[in-house]
Amino acid sequence: MSEYTALSDLGEFGLIRRIQNTIKLEQKSTVVGIGDDAAVLEPGEKNIVVSTDMLVEGVHFDLSFCPLRHLGYKAVAVNVSDIAAMNALPTQITVSLAIGSRYTVEAIEELYDGIRIACENYKVDLVGGDTTSSNAGLVISITAIGEVAKGEAVLRSTAKPNDLICVTGDLGAAYLGLQVLEREKQVFLDNPEMQPDLRDKEYLVQRQLKPEARMDV
Amino acid sequence: MSEYTALSDLGEFGLIRRIQNTIKLEQKSTVVGIGDDAAVLEPGEKNIVVSTDMLVEGVHFDLSFCPLRHLGYKAVAVNVSDIAAMNALPTQITVSLAIGSRYTVEAIEELYDGIRIACENYKVDLVGGDTTSSNAGLVISITAIGEVAKGEAVLRSTAKPNDLICVTGDLGAAYLGLQVLEREKQVFLDNPEMQPDLRDKEYLVQRQLKPEARMDV
Repeated sequence: MSEYTALSDLGEFGLIRRIQNTIKLEQKSTVVGIGDDAAVLEPGEKNIVVSTDMLVEGVHFDLSFCPLRHLGYKAVAVNVSDIAAMNALPTQITVSLAIGSRYTVEAIEELYDGIRIACENYKVDLVGGDTTSSNAGLVISITAIGEVAKGEAVLRSTAKPNDLICVTGDLGAAYLGLQVLEREKQVFLDNPEMQPDLRDKEYLVQRQLKPEARMDV
Repeated sequence: MSEYTALSDLGEFGLIRRIQNTIKLEQKSTVVGIGDDAAVLEPGEKNIVVSTDMLVEGVHFDLSFCPLRHLGYKAVAVNVSDIAAMNALPTQITVSLAIGSRYTVEAIEELYDGIRIACENYKVDLVGGDTTSSNAGLVISITAIGEVAKGEAVLRSTAKPNDLICVTGDLGAAYLGLQVLEREKQVFLDNPEMQPDLRDKEYLVQRQLKPEARMDV
């Protein structure tokens, strides 16, 4: 039988220490990461770009079909994507969590595994955050910071008439993936003996559960 | 009779527009504020300092005795305080909110009034954020950014044996203020005819409801 640890046994600082031990800092602009009152960054002559997104359990994700590791990955990817949309290179993130009492230490480590894998993929440093309890579900708030040469940030306001609008990927694939997952959840709720049938739906489900920020365009 | 507007009537972008109209940008390092995918900042040769805090309804605040305007002010003050603790000058914040369905547009504007007043007091620019719905209470996540000359950030790790530790203000005043408010809430719940009696407790209650970041030391 696997053992689970209650978050209250570990405490906020115990959790931070456990997470901190798995974090590697890669960006040369990161001077101080997790563990002080604030992170210290040295962007040099560059401009910095700041974006923030909040994901709420029951609104943005359903843990009955979204594994915590995928959720952590996705939470980073959507923020990195906003930075890339400004023509900037993502460099650091902070992660704040409000955690309901039914979450174990192992569950939160799963979530951070996804966050860590995304950080490694996108080469961003996890430099800070806040961890608190919640009377309801899980809330994830991520702030992403990026760097861009002075004056090179691309703004919506710089779009002009006759500009071409290009879209990457398949519009609606993530939405269809969500519909597939919700249908299978309904089937499962009606009959817990059923196993979800995702054959030939791998692509759609992946677009929903593990989207990637397009850094290549 | 006063009129209240449901948030769903206004929508996220309607709310952002209303808030945006009340925001003034003061910091010269703010290049682009609210309204794009991300804010753009130009810290120049300085280091930047990043801190983030999350406040959860029912855990960090009780709206039965904490007015929304005070809550907004306090949410900014605690973040500004973390930046000041690093010997940095707070310059920008982002504010993310998860809002339960019982909140009206007017309630959220009260909250933003407090945020705006704190921004003016501490001379920080509100440059971005995220607004989403919540199935439970209100969650406020603020990320604060500050500037400090290279190498001048004061870290906990730079403390040495024989350093003096100085504490400002009165230890425990905010806690006593909370106890006063919780006692009066209990009296009120037992007998709704009672009016709270806060005579001679103004100082304690203020330390709880409207704490200030110590920028003067």
